[in-house]
Amino acid sequence: MTEADVRESMRVLATGARAAARELAKAGRAQKDAALHAIAKRLRAGAPALLEANRADVSRFRESGSATPAFIDRLTLTEQRLEGVARGVLEIAAQDDPVGAVTGMTRRPNGLLVGQVRIPLGVIAMIYEARPNVTVDAAALCIKSGNAVLLRGGSEAAHSNAALGALLREGLSDVGLAADAVQIVPPGDREAMRALLGLSGLVDLVIPRGGEGLVRFVTEHAKVPVIQHYQGVCHLYVDEGADLSLAVRLVVDGKTVRPGVCNALECLLVHEREAKTLLPAVEAMAIEKGVELRGCPRTLGIISRAVAAAPSDYGREFLDKILAVRVVTRLDEALAHVSQYGSGHTEAICTPSYESAQRWLREVDASCVLVNASTRFNDGGELGLGAEIGISTSKLHAFGPMGIESLTTKKWIVYGEGQVRG
Amino acid sequence: MTEADVRESMRVLATGARAAARELAKAGRAQKDAALHAIAKRLRAGAPALLEANRADVSRFRESGSATPAFIDRLTLTEQRLEGVARGVLEIAAQDDPVGAVTGMTRRPNGLLVGQVRIPLGVIAMIYEARPNVTVDAAALCIKSGNAVLLRGGSEAAHSNAALGALLREGLSDVGLAADAVQIVPPGDREAMRALLGLSGLVDLVIPRGGEGLVRFVTEHAKVPVIQHYQGVCHLYVDEGADLSLAVRLVVDGKTVRPGVCNALECLLVHEREAKTLLPAVEAMAIEKGVELRGCPRTLGIISRAVAAAPSDYGREFLDKILAVRVVTRLDEALAHVSQYGSGHTEAICTPSYESAQRWLREVDASCVLVNASTRFNDGGELGLGAEIGISTSKLHAFGPMGIESLTTKKWIVYGEGQVRG
Repeated sequence: MTEADVRESMRVLATGARAAARELAKAGRAQKDAALHAIAKRLRAGAPALLEANRADVSRFRESGSATPAFIDRLTLTEQRLEGVARGVLEIAAQDDPVGAVTGMTRRPNGLLVGQVRIPLGVIAMIYEARPNVTVDAAALCIKSGNAVLLRGGSEAAHSNAALGALLREGLSDVGLAADAVQIVPPGDREAMRALLGLSGLVDLVIPRGGEGLVRFVTEHAKVPVIQHYQGVCHLYVDEGADLSLAVRLVVDGKTVRPGVCNALECLLVHEREAKTLLPAVEAMAIEKGVELRGCPRTLGIISRAVAAAPSDYGREFLDKILAVRVVTRLDEALAHVSQYGSGHTEAICTPSYESAQRWLREVDASCVLVNASTRFNDGGELGLGAEIGISTSKLHAFGPMGIESLTTKKWIVYGEGQVRG
Repeated sequence: MTEADVRESMRVLATGARAAARELAKAGRAQKDAALHAIAKRLRAGAPALLEANRADVSRFRESGSATPAFIDRLTLTEQRLEGVARGVLEIAAQDDPVGAVTGMTRRPNGLLVGQVRIPLGVIAMIYEARPNVTVDAAALCIKSGNAVLLRGGSEAAHSNAALGALLREGLSDVGLAADAVQIVPPGDREAMRALLGLSGLVDLVIPRGGEGLVRFVTEHAKVPVIQHYQGVCHLYVDEGADLSLAVRLVVDGKTVRPGVCNALECLLVHEREAKTLLPAVEAMAIEKGVELRGCPRTLGIISRAVAAAPSDYGREFLDKILAVRVVTRLDEALAHVSQYGSGHTEAICTPSYESAQRWLREVDASCVLVNASTRFNDGGELGLGAEIGISTSKLHAFGPMGIESLTTKKWIVYGEGQVRG
């Protein structure tokens, strides 16, 4: 295809999605939930064919030679995982529908009755990498919130996504909704992605989910609004007087359970009064769990297992069993460190002090700020949002995990009786 | 200056603003309001010097030869206008402070107490054209909401903006707040603007206020989130059975009072049953008020004064005393017209029908949808938001007029008792 053909095919997909979005915006909760139930049913009934499509992706990817075990694991669907995906769709169906809620109705001095009603955003483009489950999760969240969605997954999952997309569209048709509300964008060169990102007026929001390279590419080329999710450089500050066994538990949970996720702990800050007792306990944990410690000079003076941290180890998202460590003289130094090196994602304090807790909650600028709890709780499900479509590290529209409501906005409605401004 | 120098000077300004933003985010309402009172006082005391600086801008601009009377009017400050600006600052001080409000506190099954607290966005860049009053309005809204602001006005207002900026900074210092929370970006070539728009991580939001060319330039080059305000192509649909004298009043208010503003009426849609009686009344009004009518063939069959509308006259923002007119067969055709040609700004219906009103409110996709009221009410002040910093025609973050709350976001706060996810 020529560049012009690629642009035209993207425009056709998006135009179809926009027409479907207008229909979906009018659909009531019952019909949208019925579509989600139909999709779950089709996911279960279609499991054998889906697994076969997925096996084709996995074997082709294995042969490509660029496969890592972790990547293959993300790409692979199993019967059990598919059942989990179907259950996730039903859980989304069970959530409240934010669309149509009216808030802030007030009577103006001139008699106008004004308020706001929650509406879908319109057409959302999801751009993501390997996991085929994102195809279904994202579509279900968009359908529930009354949005059409353009799904552009990675080329490694092309067969899986095509099969899942067909099934999502059938589920919509089953209940009389427009199948075009879900569109699979064929993966391929970045020209198609650039065309998609330029569809100002047809696409209302782009949500990239993947590595920082993908997010930067999308932000660089988008002419439509983008939800940015950059790094999660999450800190835990252990304050003076902290319960040290709790502090170690928070480190273990933050660093060792799933070190590759964005709310994993990357840097431990320790008040100097606690360093001599806490750091040896952290060292013992590190030995047991196979965690590499990279410490400041004061850390190195207390424990021998730590290696010297390079300046670039602070503010770094390791996504691995590596933990930066720094001893600080007081809360203010911890706050300054977080302000300088944090990524605005998740920041936790372990403290017995009311004042330190209050200052941390007030002064730390991040999407989720925690006291005496693991950084791993910055997650849509854990915070009570239900399934999340992404996490925003920029402050516009949403800051932190994005659930169904983040896929909606509000318009003003005005009930008049002939008022003019004059 | 070289390009690198320009970029570096923008980075220095923004870094200063970011440090000031951290301070301002911690300031309580009393201190922020005190700063606004100090600014109003200085505006009044400094009026002679401000007017002199403004006269320099106006006379230089007159000499440039590109001056139109409307542009000179927008650029000109008078004692009375300055007093209006000072009063506007005091009105902003009197508004509620959204920062610090906590919402949605809930106890999770694991005992975590989670909720959200409203926080400032951080650093906001305003990019605008002639009016020097925007300098003060925008700064006051940003200060009230705890944000630092980079103000990049037009080169025509350079002296006025420099003088106003100095005074805004003095007002902040008067009450012990960081003067760097307000930074005047020297106007000049677009290289400086491009540098400003690339400051990802230092600038949280860019708000362009000006013509479509400015907004497109900003959107094209921004690596930071942008509030987009494109056109206001506002329609009024006069439904079957409408009160025709009300319909004419809505046309007069929408089209003739301030035809150059974004919530002015651009297109009249008339139900075919009302066309024969309404259009002659609209024609009489057009003759009286000097409005040019551009009609569809059916319109031309009823009234003689209308000229034939070109296809491009639908969906067009005239910003002038020109009104497109079209006769439609029923509500659905009006809805389809608005869906095709509207700009998502403001759409009004004039109807006696409950059903038509409900369908209009539900089905029209625009930031403000009105029944039996003038399109001119889509305005922050009229909707009860207080002063507005801009109007968003994209759906992200804000849709429609943006008041103080639109300059804030929410972060999650979590009160734990040692919880881990495991």
